[in-house]
Order: sequence, then C-alpha cells, then structure tokens
Amino acid sequence: MTKTLGTNELDRLAHLLGKLPGLGPRSSGRVALHLLKQKESLMLPLASALADAAHNVSRCEICGNLDSINPCRICTDQERDKSTCCVVKEVGDLWALERSGVYNGQYHVMGGLLSALDGIGPQELRCEGLVKRASNNSMKEIILAMDATVDGQTTAYYLVELLSESNISVTWLARGVPVGGELGYLDDGTIAQALKARRSI
Amino acid sequence: MTKTLGTNELDRLAHLLGKLPGLGPRSSGRVALHLLKQKESLMLPLASALADAAHNVSRCEICGNLDSINPCRICTDQERDKSTCCVVKEVGDLWALERSGVYNGQYHVMGGLLSALDGIGPQELRCEGLVKRASNNSMKEIILAMDATVDGQTTAYYLVELLSESNISVTWLARGVPVGGELGYLDDGTIAQALKARRSI
Repeated sequence: MTKTLGTNELDRLAHLLGKLPGLGPRSSGRVALHLLKQKESLMLPLASALADAAHNVSRCEICGNLDSINPCRICTDQERDKSTCCVVKEVGDLWALERSGVYNGQYHVMGGLLSALDGIGPQELRCEGLVKRASNNSMKEIILAMDATVDGQTTAYYLVELLSESNISVTWLARGVPVGGELGYLDDGTIAQALKARRSI
Repeated sequence: MTKTLGTNELDRLAHLLGKLPGLGPRSSGRVALHLLKQKESLMLPLASALADAAHNVSRCEICGNLDSINPCRICTDQERDKSTCCVVKEVGDLWALERSGVYNGQYHVMGGLLSALDGIGPQELRCEGLVKRASNNSMKEIILAMDATVDGQTTAYYLVELLSESNISVTWLARGVPVGGELGYLDDGTIAQALKARRSI
C-alpha cells in the first residue's frame, strides 16, 4: 500500500498480513478491518495461537514433520505400521495424505524437491535421514509420493538411485485419471499414462 | 479440515486462519506452514502486531475512523480542510479515498449501509453524528461517497433527506466510465449514466 492507513499499528499489521500467501496489499487491509471488528473472538485468539505455535511447534528429528512433541505423534504412534514409509515433499503433502485416511505407515518429509533452477541439491533435503531409515531392518517399503512435476520426478529418480543399495522395495503413486476427472479436460500426458497402466475390471 | 493436522497448536492456528476473509480450510494449512517456516521474521512479529492493534486501535468518536488516537489523526489534523466532509460506508473506503490522494477534507464513516434484507436501519449507522456535524457552521459541503449499489443508493437518498434541513451543500461522486474501462465490457447502466452526464471537451 503506497499510502499509509494512518496509524503505525494498522500499517504494520497490514504490511505483515500482506506477506501471507494469497493476500496482497489490498486484501490485507480488508483482513485487518475484519480482524478489528472481531477483536475478542478472532484477533486476540489468533495472536496467541501464532505465538503458541511459533514457540511450541518444531521439526520432528526423525521424519521432518511439524509437531509440538519431538519425535512427532506419527513417529511415536505404536499403532502405525513401522514397515512402510511414505516420502513427501513437505508437511502439507503429509496432511493431504492423512486426510485421505487410507495410509497408516510412517512418513519422511524431504523439505523440498531437487531443482536445478532454484539451486536445490541433495544436501538441502533430508536424504541422509531417509537412507538411514531405509537401512533399518524393520523397513520393507518406501513409497515415493512426490509431485508429478519435472522436479518431483527428478527427485523421485534420484531417491530410487540412492535407495538402490538398500534391500528395500521402492514404489510410487499410480498415475492416471483423477477421481472426478473428465477426459476432455485432461492433458495428453495423463491420458497416455492412464492408457499404458490400464487394468482389467 | 475434517482430519486434524496432528497437533493442538497447529489445528487451532489453522482453524483461526481459516476464518480470515479469502482463506479457506486448505489455504489456511498452507498459510500456517508458510508462517512456521518464517517464525522470527513473520510469525512472531504478526502475533505481536495483532495484539498491539487489538489493544491500541479504536473508533474515532467524531468520524468512526480506526486509529490509535481518539479523535483520530484525520480529525485532529489542522492542515486538512474543515469545511468538507466525505461520507463513506466503512474504513476501507476511507483508505481507498486517501490512496487516491486528491481529497484533503474530513470523513464520516457510517459503519455500513441501510439494508432491508440484512435488517440494518438508520439506528445501526452513525446518522446522528453526521447530522450534528452538518449543523456546524464551518461545514459547507457533504460528499456522499457510497457504493453505486442498491443499498449504497438507498443510503445516499436517505442521507440527502436527513440533511435537507441543514443549510449545507450535499454532493455525490460522479458516475461514468471508470479509468481503464472498455466500453464493450461495461454494463448498460454505467454507459447510460456516462452518456447522460457527458461533458464538452
């Protein structure tokens, strides 16, 4: 916002809100107003929730998940399968898989994808920890759940290579028509993959 | 989010973020992650900015603006024109007018628009304060800068009526083609108004 909102407190708040993904300089002013209208029910609780999470939530030293306990709730859950580990780019992907409700194994959060353009190499990711976990005898399968993008596939191939020395089964997610997907709107690559991987009914 | 993110702190944060305008249950998780990646530079400053603004910012008793001083910076600014008052729906509109940089008078924030559907009558708005300010001898002109919507126009007509007893000039914003507007994309109402109010070059 080129022109200030008149007060230091409001300017600072709108400036910081404008740094959140999905909020620009105009919408941050609208959000600030919305918050000021609900000081007790939303603004002050949000302030304390931010401070609480900032102070208490940290990376799990085993899998890289975010939690207020370390190792995290998933790593320490005795009811979860210890023989399967699903490798994801970031915690948001872990959440997406948990929402699906069909997976009950371990996770490994890489912290990003290999990217020549962004200068992200293997040393920037949690590769070492993954190799160490794969060498554990109780681990039977590593599922590479990376994005179906160039960077995601590059990272997956790199990890397949890295894990080839360990005696472990490495799989990745099926490619195909997404649920609810209309063929006419799908890209050629997806249709080609879905055709190649067709299954008998 | 039906499934939790695993920790109370994160769930609470994502839940509160999801209440902000423009953020839904999915994007609130993404915003929470974004914040956790920038604890020191964004998350903790935002927490304190929220608390600061919640504690220090309040309504100006004269015009209804939001500021950390009362009366607000605009009402107490001796360099601003005291003879003109621009009436707006809410503080966001005041900010928009200030951004334009062409107005240097007073403001009066109504706090909403008359709306039969939403059950908002004159007693819900700052009408009394406006009449009182209009009766001040130094006030020469009231500019009604309401939305060009049904509710905005209803409110404007109501205020014209209300101010008819005071000996003051009441104006409203010009209607016409917006800057950058292409005729082919404009609605009929705007084109009709722009034609009727055409000016010699």
